[in-house]
Amino acid sequence: MENFADRLVEAIKEKGNPICVGLDPRLDKIPAEIKRKAIAGGDKTPLAAAADAVLEFNKGTIDAVADLVPVVKPQIAFYEIFGHEGVRAYEETLKYAKEKGLITIADAKRNDIGSTAEAYAQAFLGEVSFFEDADEVITPIFDADSITINPYLGWDGVKPFVEECAKYGKGIFSLVKTSNPSSGDLQDLEMADGRSIYEVVGYLLDSWGANELGKSGYSFVGAVVGATYPEQAAKLREIMPHNIFLVPGYGAQGGGAEDVKPCFNKDGLGAIVNNSRGIIFAYEKFEMAPSEYGEAARRAVLEMKEDLARVL
Amino acid sequence: MENFADRLVEAIKEKGNPICVGLDPRLDKIPAEIKRKAIAGGDKTPLAAAADAVLEFNKGTIDAVADLVPVVKPQIAFYEIFGHEGVRAYEETLKYAKEKGLITIADAKRNDIGSTAEAYAQAFLGEVSFFEDADEVITPIFDADSITINPYLGWDGVKPFVEECAKYGKGIFSLVKTSNPSSGDLQDLEMADGRSIYEVVGYLLDSWGANELGKSGYSFVGAVVGATYPEQAAKLREIMPHNIFLVPGYGAQGGGAEDVKPCFNKDGLGAIVNNSRGIIFAYEKFEMAPSEYGEAARRAVLEMKEDLARVL
Repeated sequence: MENFADRLVEAIKEKGNPICVGLDPRLDKIPAEIKRKAIAGGDKTPLAAAADAVLEFNKGTIDAVADLVPVVKPQIAFYEIFGHEGVRAYEETLKYAKEKGLITIADAKRNDIGSTAEAYAQAFLGEVSFFEDADEVITPIFDADSITINPYLGWDGVKPFVEECAKYGKGIFSLVKTSNPSSGDLQDLEMADGRSIYEVVGYLLDSWGANELGKSGYSFVGAVVGATYPEQAAKLREIMPHNIFLVPGYGAQGGGAEDVKPCFNKDGLGAIVNNSRGIIFAYEKFEMAPSEYGEAARRAVLEMKEDLARVL
Repeated sequence: MENFADRLVEAIKEKGNPICVGLDPRLDKIPAEIKRKAIAGGDKTPLAAAADAVLEFNKGTIDAVADLVPVVKPQIAFYEIFGHEGVRAYEETLKYAKEKGLITIADAKRNDIGSTAEAYAQAFLGEVSFFEDADEVITPIFDADSITINPYLGWDGVKPFVEECAKYGKGIFSLVKTSNPSSGDLQDLEMADGRSIYEVVGYLLDSWGANELGKSGYSFVGAVVGATYPEQAAKLREIMPHNIFLVPGYGAQGGGAEDVKPCFNKDGLGAIVNNSRGIIFAYEKFEMAPSEYGEAARRAVLEMKEDLARVL
């Protein structure tokens, strides 16, 4: 089974950029014609129609950017908002992205005690078996290439994910230093040994992923490090030389190319930079029609690629 | 809108115990006849059948314990393992429990940056509006009474939940000191001021919920504190006098009545104690037939009630 980090590094090299497109759809920004088409027919529930509109919008975005970027990351909250119908659209979005050759990150920030984390890990990364009494069925469920997780519960909440990753060639990205304004409430507090909590989490993650290096020298255990805190990112880059950073906060959240630079290693690798609203709703920024969202997304990706190339 | 803490305290007093039944179904422990019935008909997918079996099993458990306990807590990982069909069973489980007069906790450990946390909060606790162009539809989605959340991102990842709670009379339980063996990897580390991380989180939570007190004197901002760490629980009880503790770890995870005692205030209130496997699969412990799981669950609840009454 190929190491996830190697697959990711290959895809970054092939596409010539480390851009991750965040598929965080919002119904009020989806073109009216897509919504009208989703309602048409009339025999589905409003929630099913909403979910179908989201899926259709995502497919348009994926079609527009699949040849340009290595990775997409649908954030599951924007699907769960439509209940199980939304989760269906989430599954189908992951599947469609995979068919188009993209690496997927299920942005779900899951975590729990060991036995529960195991269920999440099987659902999102592995396979699930059921109905042993009748015919046994073994099937992947979400089948994402990777998932974001939360480190608060310590190793035994992370281990089941690492095990599924090793078995299925998948990856994880654990929160370390998040991009939001109040991430420092907890993460920046000073420990007895002078380090900050986010640094301690960085060391923990480095140790959790130490045995999981691919040929590329990177581990399938990655880290979420916000573009909005470049100084902290520079420290973390030193602490975790082998972990790939998933970097949110570029674009709408205020981070620029200079801010993401410290997330990369000297080889120009070691990070992927996410942009959600700045790409999928780029039609607003470019003052284009909503129906031209695919073209706008493409243009936004090309601009972002150029922006990042200045500093890498 | 009645404060969630008041509703919870009333239900605890009415039922005369603080037991929360964890609805964490596992297909291999569900009676064969329920699974056979779920498969029958043959026109549904195996995943839909699995989800139906889970729902049916839950209904049986709920019917058996609804007059005895105040709260149930379905853990969403055990539903997501069947993809969107599982999430459908999750929605229906919450709905059924509510119809039977139970208070529900969506055990989902959700959290993210503000704009994303808002989507989770709306989906799980509030209402969602969509299709403005056609008829506008506003509907609750999961409509749980409360949800478990993760505090790692700080206040702006918690605030959207607090806002929905205030608006809809709902509650949250944030992780503070979790019940798993390696919860100390991060939570027990010593800060510069001598406190542990879990204590700092306790202080943060106390401040986040300080304005949300009901007539009962308790806040709708609750805390998850494991029964497996009674010393830490005692410290947290002092730090957070107004926050209701959701206490996992009793039963299968090794905690007993003496261990949960420190989670309660002197008034005998301030905590609810969860038991999942020890109740829903109690037929194993009592060496009863799987089909008698409801009766066994009832017996397990009554034993647990007696056990807790010894120390409260």
